[in-house]
Amino acid sequence: MTNSKPTLYTALSPALLHLYDVNHAIVVIIDVLRATSTIATALRNGAKCVIPVDSVAKCIELGRQIDGITAGERDGLIAEGLEHGNSPFEYPREFIHNKTLVLTTTNGTKLLHMALDRGAGQIITGSFPNLGSICQYLIDQHQPVVLGCAAWKDRINLEDMLFAGAVINQVKAHFSINCDSSQLAETAYLDAKGDLYEFMKAKNASHYHRLMGYGLEKDIRYCLTPDVANVLPVYENGKLIVL
Amino acid sequence: MTNSKPTLYTALSPALLHLYDVNHAIVVIIDVLRATSTIATALRNGAKCVIPVDSVAKCIELGRQIDGITAGERDGLIAEGLEHGNSPFEYPREFIHNKTLVLTTTNGTKLLHMALDRGAGQIITGSFPNLGSICQYLIDQHQPVVLGCAAWKDRINLEDMLFAGAVINQVKAHFSINCDSSQLAETAYLDAKGDLYEFMKAKNASHYHRLMGYGLEKDIRYCLTPDVANVLPVYENGKLIVL
Repeated sequence: MTNSKPTLYTALSPALLHLYDVNHAIVVIIDVLRATSTIATALRNGAKCVIPVDSVAKCIELGRQIDGITAGERDGLIAEGLEHGNSPFEYPREFIHNKTLVLTTTNGTKLLHMALDRGAGQIITGSFPNLGSICQYLIDQHQPVVLGCAAWKDRINLEDMLFAGAVINQVKAHFSINCDSSQLAETAYLDAKGDLYEFMKAKNASHYHRLMGYGLEKDIRYCLTPDVANVLPVYENGKLIVL
Repeated sequence: MTNSKPTLYTALSPALLHLYDVNHAIVVIIDVLRATSTIATALRNGAKCVIPVDSVAKCIELGRQIDGITAGERDGLIAEGLEHGNSPFEYPREFIHNKTLVLTTTNGTKLLHMALDRGAGQIITGSFPNLGSICQYLIDQHQPVVLGCAAWKDRINLEDMLFAGAVINQVKAHFSINCDSSQLAETAYLDAKGDLYEFMKAKNASHYHRLMGYGLEKDIRYCLTPDVANVLPVYENGKLIVL
């Protein structure tokens, strides 16, 4: 047994993922508003699994094949041909228990597939609602970690970085962190943690602005709330399941 | 005359520059430790111009052709075949006045050439020593701005981002800023501004660590000092000259 700590890096955008070695690492896919928050919530509420797909067409096709719930939005509205949206509030236990959710998202799914293509050791998905589960798992595994922010069309966003910072803040004693992006994420998180919602508002975060335009304040507040859907979603054979 | 404010964006890594439209923008090349700090200092001390090149071979060749001072380091030592290093302290007025400095740097020069290839409207170089000149110029021009961080082999670094944050902090009233990277940079800067050097040390910034290993604390401290070499370096016809 060695005393050396595994490394931890943060990729603040999918366009920076290639800079980090994911081969023997656990990659945490982070898409706080709202994909990975909704995934944690649906799984916490008993969904059999969540299948992330990158297009509406695939979502419709797969939903039909496996009799799954199809979900996804484009420009703030349920995409044509799908049944449900991206809000975590659409997936209470009485609705989603024992069902399969086929979810199309853009940024999060793209990053997940990139990590897969690059040979990630393991892929899990993180968000504030399942912060505690993520941190405990990373500490227990004693493996290298790459925190991957889904961002918005490759542009860095505040909320994914704040979640990376929250993870770092909880797990840093267990890792060797030589990564300015990680330092930056934790710095911003420490600034923001008193009231994450107010921080997003005060900084006029681009995604805050976008979702408020769709009247989704309730979603934003929920997606910034730690530990309300603690579960560990692991990607296996094309599906996110609870470990 | 219109009242609308020009946009300002921050690219925290060269790998993110393509996300921003530089065509009609002023692009500020930021390579705080130490390229753009040394450029400001040499020009402030009367250098005729600074020619940034991307390899030691080009530096030697050009230095011979135009009888310039050749300078550049690799792994903390003056590169073989060159005369001087990257430290701003090597370029006092009594030495550099009226001379041409041919400087090879990796990250900063690469970003400058990327901005040029992408059709940047104008290219200037910024660092804490010439912070005030940069801010005043950006306010006066009333043009779109892209703050470009040179980073380290495409990995985001703290010091370039802190400088971007310092600029944003001074100019933000004059720009329309819808950019989470800019918000992030300013947030970190506000945290750090009381003592930039201590911030870099406390966060164990990767470049701080690297340069301290070469015994360059004095360089780091100088490169984090605002307004000690206020001058505006503009890139024209392959040369950085004082506007």
